[in-house]
Amino acid sequence: MSQMTSVIEAGIRPANWTRALQRTCIQDMLVECARPGILSFALGLPAADLFPASDYLEAVAQVLTTDPQALQYGPPSASLKQHIVRLMERRGIQCDEEQVFLTTGSQQSLNLLTRLLLDPCGTVVTEELTYPGYLQVLQPYQPDVLTVPTCLETGMDVEAVGKMLENGVRPAMIYVMAEGHNPLTVSMSRAKRVHLVELARRYCVPIIEDDAYGFLHYEGAAEPPLRAFDDEWVIYLGTFSKVLAPALRTGWMIVPEALTAHLSTIKEASDINTTTLSQRAIAAYLEAGHLAGHIAMLRHEYGLRRDTMLAALEDHLPQGAAWQKPHSGLFIWVELPDGLDTRDLLRAAIDQERVAFIPGHAFNASRRNLAANCMRLNFSNSSVNAINDGVARLARVLQNEGRMKASRGR
Amino acid sequence: MSQMTSVIEAGIRPANWTRALQRTCIQDMLVECARPGILSFALGLPAADLFPASDYLEAVAQVLTTDPQALQYGPPSASLKQHIVRLMERRGIQCDEEQVFLTTGSQQSLNLLTRLLLDPCGTVVTEELTYPGYLQVLQPYQPDVLTVPTCLETGMDVEAVGKMLENGVRPAMIYVMAEGHNPLTVSMSRAKRVHLVELARRYCVPIIEDDAYGFLHYEGAAEPPLRAFDDEWVIYLGTFSKVLAPALRTGWMIVPEALTAHLSTIKEASDINTTTLSQRAIAAYLEAGHLAGHIAMLRHEYGLRRDTMLAALEDHLPQGAAWQKPHSGLFIWVELPDGLDTRDLLRAAIDQERVAFIPGHAFNASRRNLAANCMRLNFSNSSVNAINDGVARLARVLQNEGRMKASRGR
Repeated sequence: MSQMTSVIEAGIRPANWTRALQRTCIQDMLVECARPGILSFALGLPAADLFPASDYLEAVAQVLTTDPQALQYGPPSASLKQHIVRLMERRGIQCDEEQVFLTTGSQQSLNLLTRLLLDPCGTVVTEELTYPGYLQVLQPYQPDVLTVPTCLETGMDVEAVGKMLENGVRPAMIYVMAEGHNPLTVSMSRAKRVHLVELARRYCVPIIEDDAYGFLHYEGAAEPPLRAFDDEWVIYLGTFSKVLAPALRTGWMIVPEALTAHLSTIKEASDINTTTLSQRAIAAYLEAGHLAGHIAMLRHEYGLRRDTMLAALEDHLPQGAAWQKPHSGLFIWVELPDGLDTRDLLRAAIDQERVAFIPGHAFNASRRNLAANCMRLNFSNSSVNAINDGVARLARVLQNEGRMKASRGR
Repeated sequence: MSQMTSVIEAGIRPANWTRALQRTCIQDMLVECARPGILSFALGLPAADLFPASDYLEAVAQVLTTDPQALQYGPPSASLKQHIVRLMERRGIQCDEEQVFLTTGSQQSLNLLTRLLLDPCGTVVTEELTYPGYLQVLQPYQPDVLTVPTCLETGMDVEAVGKMLENGVRPAMIYVMAEGHNPLTVSMSRAKRVHLVELARRYCVPIIEDDAYGFLHYEGAAEPPLRAFDDEWVIYLGTFSKVLAPALRTGWMIVPEALTAHLSTIKEASDINTTTLSQRAIAAYLEAGHLAGHIAMLRHEYGLRRDTMLAALEDHLPQGAAWQKPHSGLFIWVELPDGLDTRDLLRAAIDQERVAFIPGHAFNASRRNLAANCMRLNFSNSSVNAINDGVARLARVLQNEGRMKASRGR
């Protein structure tokens, strides 16, 4: 990340909090990866070649030719909410329509909830390595961000959360990705899920469960989300961005009904309503029964791409590199030998081999220098051939860097 | 507006600022007006029967069948920005693509700008009667909202703004609707526009110019927007909601280029990006050359509805009611005799005659009891017959109320 200081030299003066405003690595990568010839494992993009464009067009056509209010302002679609209730059942969540709150994607859900729950300079708890979009949402509030470590096999250190709460910390919320953690890819063990929910109940602290990747798991059934164990303290975040398409900008929350009045007012102030055309077209798409088959196809295809990347890493990466097999989500988290800085490596990777990834540093929510030797690789948005090619390129960069380091060391 | 206190009795505790959170009259009306048989002049809805549904469907089909990235995350559409530059020329604004900032509608523009410009407990300047959606955006910041009166013939009292600035007030922004003020319907005189811009320059204070209705004017050419007189201190807000369709949730700002880096980061944190499908479909619709004819048709139709309502008011409303002929926008502002409270009247209107409007009180940004005897009537979303019928119903309620008052007074 690069400081933005001195960008504004004259003219309109921004608010004080923006002095600490940083351009995100994701923004940088959006620009870098748009350069011709760059093979990108950087962004968390679904595969464009797998979008259900013609089925969705059919749904849009149906809505636009039959519903005169399809382009109007409007209240949340009751039909879409009903479909989401049924979708939630497939994740093991029992909820009703009144608890479904539609949003302009999960990123907006995080905004609405932060607005609802966090006072300026309040406290939140999250993992040391976490989704940077959440940290961005927090920034204007200048909160105390308390972090706990994450075990790469079992997820968030819930014991550490328990100690904080025992010591009197009362965060406005605990943010967690139980299934397919971004960027660490780990899914939380069932025992930890249950324990975390118990803590939330005991200490009356809300949990924000971001389940962006919950429907994209590759082995057997995923564990139930935290929301399946509690409907009072867990707020669940779902989205159509990864299972349908990000361009629809439609997501949802499952929230305790007592919060929906406040959330409606905050939502209205944010963008009036979630695009009614997307709401209705998604409802029509779901009504036509397309989603289950589409998700099954995505699981198969993404599973294939994941396995291809795992095999390529095995084939090409030098000794000392380590990674886990992710059971959900769109990423592989690679740890390189200590001392290697993946920010330098990224520069070299783009310049020498025209391949991109996100350096671990971008996900660091703690004050310690963490994950400097790590990188997040996306496998969903590259073909099998591109994955093999890209990992080979990455390995060449690593070898070059290794040689450079060695020659420097002499 | 009704306080929401004691809604949250147990469970998750919201942030402190929400204690003052109020349900808006607009939210209430969305529910009321959804009841069967209600003839609504309440909300600021465009006419659903005039939406260009088939042309827009064609644009969506073109995009979805030719652009594989149409459903993906993506940077702002360069093509749409270019079209907006040309659209702005028609409003007398010279700008370039780099100054066009795409948003999820004007309501989001207000959010992003408030986030960018307003520190907690800062100061803003607006008119005593103003767009309630702006006040909603401000609420969490708990700012000092300074207000100036509005002349129903020439708009905002710019002299009063000058006095504030002269006295040392330095607001984070001045919010103004120069063309087709909502709810007062007045368009600011050219002299006042020039004067306001001079003040902004002299005192280095940004102006937020909300031009939601700028393309919907009914007599000759509208005066140029404030942005036409200054490109350093005026931030212009445009939207496709009123000239195309609200469901697309796409608007834009014209901002000094120095602000776009900060705004991009704030926007990414808000909802990642404005729906890329809407962006591309709108660009395709504009590319096909449909918009100019569509706006001409809207002006004609809305002009007819406006004139119908003006004539009906003349025919039916009792002595003592007063209104202006609006040159832009979707509303007529009606002032009733002092002592009448339009909140009571609304209750009676819905119960007795099943007709709805927004009481003047809902637009009050000042600490004084203003516009209690006023109402905002929307004419765009009713047919000519419904307008005649609805105004006759309103007049009957007024007569009944008049009688009640008289009998009470005895």
